[in-house]
Amino acid sequence: MHAYRSHSCAELNKDNVGENVRLSGWVHRIRDHGGLLFIDLRDHYGITQVMADPDSPVFKDIEKVRSEWCIRIDGNVMARDESLVNDKLPTGEIEVFIRDIEVLGAANELPLMVFGDQEYPEDTRLKYRYLDLRREKMQDNMKLRSDVVSSMRKRMWDKGFREFQTPIITASSPEGARDFLVPSRLHPGKFYALPQAPQQFKQLIMVSGYDKYFQIAPCFRDEDPRADRSPTDFYQLDLEMSFVEQQDVFDTIQPVITGIFEEFGKGRKVDQTWEQISYRDAALWYGSDKPDLRNPIKMQVVSEHFKDSGFAIFAKLLEQEGTEVRAIPAPTGGGRKFCDRMNVFAQKEGLPGMGYIFWRKQSADSIAQERGITVKEVNALIKSGEIVLGDEAAGPLAKNIGPERTEAIRQQLGLGVGDAAFFLGGKPKAFESVAGKARQVIGDELGLTDTNRFAFAWIVDFPIYERDEETGKVDFEHNPFSMPQGGMAALDGDPEDVLGYQYDLACNGYELVSGAIRNHRPEIMFKAFEIAGYGKDEVEKRFGGMVNAFQYGAPPHGGCAAGVDRIVMLLADADNLRDVIMFPMNQRAEDVMMGAPNLPMNEQLRELSLRVVPQES
Amino acid sequence: MHAYRSHSCAELNKDNVGENVRLSGWVHRIRDHGGLLFIDLRDHYGITQVMADPDSPVFKDIEKVRSEWCIRIDGNVMARDESLVNDKLPTGEIEVFIRDIEVLGAANELPLMVFGDQEYPEDTRLKYRYLDLRREKMQDNMKLRSDVVSSMRKRMWDKGFREFQTPIITASSPEGARDFLVPSRLHPGKFYALPQAPQQFKQLIMVSGYDKYFQIAPCFRDEDPRADRSPTDFYQLDLEMSFVEQQDVFDTIQPVITGIFEEFGKGRKVDQTWEQISYRDAALWYGSDKPDLRNPIKMQVVSEHFKDSGFAIFAKLLEQEGTEVRAIPAPTGGGRKFCDRMNVFAQKEGLPGMGYIFWRKQSADSIAQERGITVKEVNALIKSGEIVLGDEAAGPLAKNIGPERTEAIRQQLGLGVGDAAFFLGGKPKAFESVAGKARQVIGDELGLTDTNRFAFAWIVDFPIYERDEETGKVDFEHNPFSMPQGGMAALDGDPEDVLGYQYDLACNGYELVSGAIRNHRPEIMFKAFEIAGYGKDEVEKRFGGMVNAFQYGAPPHGGCAAGVDRIVMLLADADNLRDVIMFPMNQRAEDVMMGAPNLPMNEQLRELSLRVVPQES
Repeated sequence: MHAYRSHSCAELNKDNVGENVRLSGWVHRIRDHGGLLFIDLRDHYGITQVMADPDSPVFKDIEKVRSEWCIRIDGNVMARDESLVNDKLPTGEIEVFIRDIEVLGAANELPLMVFGDQEYPEDTRLKYRYLDLRREKMQDNMKLRSDVVSSMRKRMWDKGFREFQTPIITASSPEGARDFLVPSRLHPGKFYALPQAPQQFKQLIMVSGYDKYFQIAPCFRDEDPRADRSPTDFYQLDLEMSFVEQQDVFDTIQPVITGIFEEFGKGRKVDQTWEQISYRDAALWYGSDKPDLRNPIKMQVVSEHFKDSGFAIFAKLLEQEGTEVRAIPAPTGGGRKFCDRMNVFAQKEGLPGMGYIFWRKQSADSIAQERGITVKEVNALIKSGEIVLGDEAAGPLAKNIGPERTEAIRQQLGLGVGDAAFFLGGKPKAFESVAGKARQVIGDELGLTDTNRFAFAWIVDFPIYERDEETGKVDFEHNPFSMPQGGMAALDGDPEDVLGYQYDLACNGYELVSGAIRNHRPEIMFKAFEIAGYGKDEVEKRFGGMVNAFQYGAPPHGGCAAGVDRIVMLLADADNLRDVIMFPMNQRAEDVMMGAPNLPMNEQLRELSLRVVPQES
Repeated sequence: MHAYRSHSCAELNKDNVGENVRLSGWVHRIRDHGGLLFIDLRDHYGITQVMADPDSPVFKDIEKVRSEWCIRIDGNVMARDESLVNDKLPTGEIEVFIRDIEVLGAANELPLMVFGDQEYPEDTRLKYRYLDLRREKMQDNMKLRSDVVSSMRKRMWDKGFREFQTPIITASSPEGARDFLVPSRLHPGKFYALPQAPQQFKQLIMVSGYDKYFQIAPCFRDEDPRADRSPTDFYQLDLEMSFVEQQDVFDTIQPVITGIFEEFGKGRKVDQTWEQISYRDAALWYGSDKPDLRNPIKMQVVSEHFKDSGFAIFAKLLEQEGTEVRAIPAPTGGGRKFCDRMNVFAQKEGLPGMGYIFWRKQSADSIAQERGITVKEVNALIKSGEIVLGDEAAGPLAKNIGPERTEAIRQQLGLGVGDAAFFLGGKPKAFESVAGKARQVIGDELGLTDTNRFAFAWIVDFPIYERDEETGKVDFEHNPFSMPQGGMAALDGDPEDVLGYQYDLACNGYELVSGAIRNHRPEIMFKAFEIAGYGKDEVEKRFGGMVNAFQYGAPPHGGCAAGVDRIVMLLADADNLRDVIMFPMNQRAEDVMMGAPNLPMNEQLRELSLRVVPQES
């Protein structure tokens, strides 16, 4: 017999009754039923109930066993009494009577229970990650991650892509976030960097003629801690294709993503048609370039209704150039309590507040107020048929702008009794992101967001440049490597009008994919950089490897990268990236289990020609 | 029509004749046949001949095109004249008459020709890697690598393993080679390290209950340059299993490796039965723990034949304790020229020389010398039948030790006329590695090595400890994490007698796989470290993460790691790892294309609280 097991803990059923078997695993749970000891023995595959009574030759040894000890048992498979069969367990028909036991690995007292649902502080979970990972939910999450990555690979191969590994120890490329540096011992004073993404290498692979590349690629960014990202590294499904236009990239990645979400989404609805929304429309409609489209709310410009209106704040505001008033429609939100709560939300977000109108059936109360008579009198008039209760718009804004404008707004937004609308004004850049948050909160609170759905849309037509409002300086808005729409000619006009072949995929409020058709023409690239104030020398210094390569027959190419961790997080319904990463850093970028980062040995620093200096404050 | 292509350059055949097609690719070769221009247009998939004559509306544009320009052409598919059909090309039946052309990416004058077999200095190849990678051989190598890695993954999944990613930014673990350090910005003065291997994490995955793990894992070692390894990083097929013994690991990985070599070995023979050779036998028989078993030569101990013999050097040597004389049999090596050449080889390797004996048919010359008569006289005696030419042993050694001992050696080694044997003496450790090299050179030079074969053997029973001859100090020979054979009890005896459940796979002279059954019992681990002079505190400080984990129910586990780069190198018949890595470092650990390592910006150093100091000499 094998030294450790004849079967896994998920394998035995009534066909095995009478067999002598050997099992190994962890003590999941021990129950003492009046001298009878029952142990749920757990391995990666499942649980088998093993038991002993005081007649067992090893009963004394079994009594010593505690939770999470790793043991090996030999025993006989016995059918359970029919009333004791557990249908939920594949091994629920049997139990194993223990004849021999060996302790393979004892356990100290547990800082974290594997059995049960008790919650523990994150640092406990991370310090004893090997215990946390034994819990059912974490086992499931890691299996899911492993399956998702494998399915991604299969789907990419099926589409004719090959996986190639790109360097992890490479050159610093000041292209966005902060690099992790790696000091070189052989070249004192010089440093390598860990790649923020394989961006330049995948473009070089295209210049090298490989046509279709992908990689499940680790990416490294020295970021300041933020709840929704891993502080050191993350994984991307990175891909690049030659001889393609934007739509080709969409047509390639869409079935991969929908396929993954259908395969692992546990029946949740997966959008099959992906709308393409321009960056500017996304900002207007959703206040975000990664809108959650499960939420049906779409904002609208309603400036005209407030121009020269009785609502002085907006009317005055609209006299300034570049200002707008936008409405967030809130179907079913028509109640003062809710509207006031949203107003408070806006104030918390740093705005003076959010004006609102809501529509309701008229009440005797409001008519009494309006007409300056008593409620009793109103009720009498209703009874007599002189007053018919109609609809009315409530809220201070409605009063200020009067019924005609209010009604025009209602019609534009397609709202009715029981609904509300919120209003924000100013320069769009100043309030768009709060508007986006308000839209999300309103959708969530009113239950408008369909949580049983994965909603996708491509956000396209990103501007290449943005102008700093204060300095007037033009700089790249996102990625300097994207091809401007219209090519060289487009760069002769106003930089702020230049759009790029650059795109993101939004899913349920996350940016899941990001990509572009690349600028593969050196002359257009130099010009694009010049507009942002980078001379030819500077470009060659920063991106020399790639710019040189483009001078030796570069093909048109483009691609994208999908966030593996985020996709798994969405599929696992986890609300924390750390729950889908085997050994994550904590939010202070520390590995509390392994003790990283740590103080180096003097010898190590000497070899690297480095000295630690006190930080300037 | 698609903006860039209706077909790839490998797709068109006579079924397409008459079609209007669009192709994109690189100008592989241009031929001018009296005004007719022929271009071999190449993409990742193949080559299509496209052509134009002066009547073509774009002839002028086509004339400007040069090698490795990336172009798009539109044209008509035409059948080739039967005499011009090229059977070697999938597209050899047709050519495309160009109607329109677009230059997608022009190319400067080429520092490296893609077409043809010209060789270039390595730094040229690495600086213009994107051109080098366009060459057929490199395209094939990278495709091979990609296919091999994919096949490995499939084979591991088929065996019930899951791939999990382990951290790349982690803690320094002083376990062998030198770590690459990564300074932490958020924790000034502290450093992360890149993992030399996922060793500790994969063991933690076992403690976490995942049963079967694998990963195509990047490993990082700051090594001094050496020809046969990548100076910064390499990839392993890393695997680990719980509840296993050594043979289970062998049974798991062997079919994966043979499968890969059969799938991609292009018909070369692949050993199906893998011998298990102890580390000590491997040293004795082959002078190496990664023997090339395609070479049939097996060394033997022949001390007894030299003890008290007339060959004073060996006779005296053998009076010292711990010395031996070993023979390298050299079938078909029986000639003075060859033997002298091998002797010179040994001298070059730093030995005083290598004594030899070779066996040949007697000649008149040698009998004349032996008997002190003339050759003429000998010939007369042969003619008269008084002398019958027999076999003889030649070489100074044979004379010194006399015919009986010589004959005994011949019989022990199973040699005969036409063969030779070489002899090395001393303490085995001092000459074993030269003996191993000599064995290899002899096998190669005599054509004994079957180059059409992949020959595998497990090297097992590695000693856990070695004793420094000078200081007498005992230290770990290889890996401190292996389980000693015999467990705790074995550690009570002589440390040098302790063998580990530790193993390497040798293939054609390379170490292809390395692994062990791990020491998962904290008490045995502390004891094992204690013998090597490491106290409990020290072990907890160095390997705290893992040692702690072992105190919470660790399962017995073991595994191995296979070198991906080396496997691909063997399969590609490349003699350089850089030929199977997309973007390798040069041997000075520099990326000359991207300019890594590079000087950091002052701002970067300041953020990391580091200063570069002049190196002490």
